Amino acid sequence: MQKTVGLPYGQDNLTLLTDFYEITMANGFFEEGKKDTIVYFDMFFRRVPDGGGFAIMAGVEQLVEYLKNLTFTEADIEFLRSKKLFSEGFLDYLRNFRFSCDVWAVPEGTPIFPHEPIVTVRGPAVQAQFIETMLLLTINHQSLIATKANRIVRAAEGRAVMEFGSRRAQGVDGAVIGSRAAYIGGCVGTACALSERDFGIPALGTMAHSWVQLFDNELDAFKAYARRYPHSCVLLVDTYNVLKSGIPNAIRAFNEVLVPMGCRPKGIRIDSGDITYLSQKARKMLDDAGFPDCAITASNALDEYLIRDMIRQNACVDSFGVGERLITAASSPVFGGVYKLAAVEENGEIVSRIKVSENVAKITNPGFKKLWRLFDRTTGKAIADVITMHDEVIDDTKPYEIFDPEHTWKRKTVENFIASCLQRELFRAGECVHQTRSLDEIRNYCLASVGDMWDEVKRFENPHDYYVDLSQKLWDEKQRLLNRHNG
Amino acid sequence: MQKTVGLPYGQDNLTLLTDFYEITMANGFFEEGKKDTIVYFDMFFRRVPDGGGFAIMAGVEQLVEYLKNLTFTEADIEFLRSKKLFSEGFLDYLRNFRFSCDVWAVPEGTPIFPHEPIVTVRGPAVQAQFIETMLLLTINHQSLIATKANRIVRAAEGRAVMEFGSRRAQGVDGAVIGSRAAYIGGCVGTACALSERDFGIPALGTMAHSWVQLFDNELDAFKAYARRYPHSCVLLVDTYNVLKSGIPNAIRAFNEVLVPMGCRPKGIRIDSGDITYLSQKARKMLDDAGFPDCAITASNALDEYLIRDMIRQNACVDSFGVGERLITAASSPVFGGVYKLAAVEENGEIVSRIKVSENVAKITNPGFKKLWRLFDRTTGKAIADVITMHDEVIDDTKPYEIFDPEHTWKRKTVENFIASCLQRELFRAGECVHQTRSLDEIRNYCLASVGDMWDEVKRFENPHDYYVDLSQKLWDEKQRLLNRHNG
Repeated sequence: MQKTVGLPYGQDNLTLLTDFYEITMANGFFEEGKKDTIVYFDMFFRRVPDGGGFAIMAGVEQLVEYLKNLTFTEADIEFLRSKKLFSEGFLDYLRNFRFSCDVWAVPEGTPIFPHEPIVTVRGPAVQAQFIETMLLLTINHQSLIATKANRIVRAAEGRAVMEFGSRRAQGVDGAVIGSRAAYIGGCVGTACALSERDFGIPALGTMAHSWVQLFDNELDAFKAYARRYPHSCVLLVDTYNVLKSGIPNAIRAFNEVLVPMGCRPKGIRIDSGDITYLSQKARKMLDDAGFPDCAITASNALDEYLIRDMIRQNACVDSFGVGERLITAASSPVFGGVYKLAAVEENGEIVSRIKVSENVAKITNPGFKKLWRLFDRTTGKAIADVITMHDEVIDDTKPYEIFDPEHTWKRKTVENFIASCLQRELFRAGECVHQTRSLDEIRNYCLASVGDMWDEVKRFENPHDYYVDLSQKLWDEKQRLLNRHNG
Repeated sequence: MQKTVGLPYGQDNLTLLTDFYEITMANGFFEEGKKDTIVYFDMFFRRVPDGGGFAIMAGVEQLVEYLKNLTFTEADIEFLRSKKLFSEGFLDYLRNFRFSCDVWAVPEGTPIFPHEPIVTVRGPAVQAQFIETMLLLTINHQSLIATKANRIVRAAEGRAVMEFGSRRAQGVDGAVIGSRAAYIGGCVGTACALSERDFGIPALGTMAHSWVQLFDNELDAFKAYARRYPHSCVLLVDTYNVLKSGIPNAIRAFNEVLVPMGCRPKGIRIDSGDITYLSQKARKMLDDAGFPDCAITASNALDEYLIRDMIRQNACVDSFGVGERLITAASSPVFGGVYKLAAVEENGEIVSRIKVSENVAKITNPGFKKLWRLFDRTTGKAIADVITMHDEVIDDTKPYEIFDPEHTWKRKTVENFIASCLQRELFRAGECVHQTRSLDEIRNYCLASVGDMWDEVKRFENPHDYYVDLSQKLWDEKQRLLNRHNG
């Protein structure tokens, strides 16, 4: 009984997983006669983790699941009443709560860039405000891990990367939902059995050092394992000494147990020491012993930088098990997505709102918007993203001029391109219209979409700044609001 | 209906939240006739996050809950059978699984140090091995966050610290269970409503910028809020300009709404800009306006270093809201606890095992052990921790000689001390004998126990290395095993 999506934490819905101020404000909007004011919120982020060129969108399935289950139980109402802050009218409203917003989001697996509206919510102020915390938590967490996983997978240059981090994850959900995001980013599997049961992510893994320690000697341990798992025999060779004992004993176990059964070894794993050096020596020993098909797996606090260096120095590693630095995105463990008011409907008209800040990078893009990606028709590569007002259409049968929103004299006319609108509708007036895709579809789409990016954008350090431009109409509207604010 | 403990993730038990290799090994032990071999495992860690002097133990309640719920459903069995790796005899064993280990752990809230056995498990090899992943995940995650929270709380020097990080947490469990750990470490509350409903942690919070933006102007927004929440009125003053608009409008709202109602303002919150400077100006403006009792709260990507600097520069801040850098322990987001075999029973005798490594710091302490803390009878301060064999008793009525386990000529005789055994029994032959404490008891115990540490150990950078010594008997046993290994 496999779930394609899963709601984490406890047996209840997650409705109350919200910052308390969302409820305080919701009650306030309700009481101030603003509950049905139609508002527009965007989720966007300001900085790619690790200084990378792009992030990977993830978490949409869990966001949909959360929104579908948004109801207040009697226990929730009782809890809120006990705070002695909320009106009975508001508590009644919650008791009969029905989600009625429109929601759009960029599909999971899409490369995303700073300042782009990756989720947009339109609906009554009370509701659109209320969902902020879980919306951010879900997309922030999974995008963080998918982004990190994709970096590590790219560093491995085609070699398999397995997610091995459950024991160091930040909570149960960090482990299980984290392995889902890692798979979207391109990992081939996970160590976590629950992730296979619930999400169908291949669970992999063979033995710990304690297996070896529990036998009288290493050779006995290896032979017992080979006997037990002749078709999936991967031996951990660093319990005592990789070159003096681990590899020789592994070769003996292969010869004495597997070969007579007509089986071939799957691999060995090295979990400590100088893996580049050890893997080269191990490769030669295995080849000389007639096991050139025996793969070498490396683990031990790896990340994209260590893997890149190992490959540069010709480590003979066929696959990588990556633990704590992937499952916590250790070198940059926060995805800073925010959720900001972009517009309000007044007398049926959409009126843009802007959040001004001393810090120019924190000024928001106002209005109800669309996000487009322009692809070169010849190379298929992504040229630029453009944010437009919602009523604009980019006609890709004609040349289109893009310009840098800060240095507006930097202009470029794009021709021979395809314009693709990135956001997809998830909810229409509260009804879910989202088309669930399988995790493998999402993963394949992610790898293909990253393939659409130029190599310059994919560098780990100092990547080329991909263009994220504003349409002339949106740019004008933003200037108008900034001038009015200053005036 | 408040839970004192909560099992996260989904409606099932978390039995399959385990690295797949734990199951592979369990089946192997079962088939190799080793399933009932009695083994001893220790959990310990090697490095304090952030280079600190100690960590804070947390996560024991959730570990207990996990172990109490350790059963395999028919769906679990079916899933495992579908892997075509496990014997029917083993699957039958799982179907009738009953946890039968003994488990000891250091209580939540205790300062802990590298290499100490913070959890010890004794039981059949199949079981003691199987629980590795969740045991580590649970203790690693919560100890990480409790440790970080305690650093931040100490930096605040008595000012309140609130946990505000749900939206940036690594998953749902990271948010909710993370807020529990932050409370143990000394935070006074959380932004997360669910954490109050489920764990009784005070949930706090007032308004976001969007509240202010949804009114025609800031003053209207403030007055509406003050009208609605006259007894808990905290206003966010940085939506437009803190000193030119936020504070003057807040003072006007206090005067025009609260004062006529006979109420006093609770506070203002500053979420951007140079908070040290702004808070000093704001303090003066509020004092001059007759609101010296109006507290100032600061938020915006804070951590222990920023808070320390703000206090050094005399920021007028009464409480801090700390988000992403606390809930992800951003500057050091991994707690590297490991779980290693320490002994095996052979013919009823406990035989020590050691894991040798080229890296001396990775060599384990062998045997079935006890952990002691020695307190000075006069000052009450902790002097040293000592790890002994399990059958040893430290008699605190007599002088006791401790020595550095690496530089054994460094010796010291301790007198006039109290010896306290730190581990508590959680399970006896699989039966839970753990005494649950309330979260407030744990938090108070944590703050008192940190108070038992000398200031030198509490420095954020380059703290004094607290003594964690081995008894002569344990030291001798370790040397014997190392010599035998090398011989």
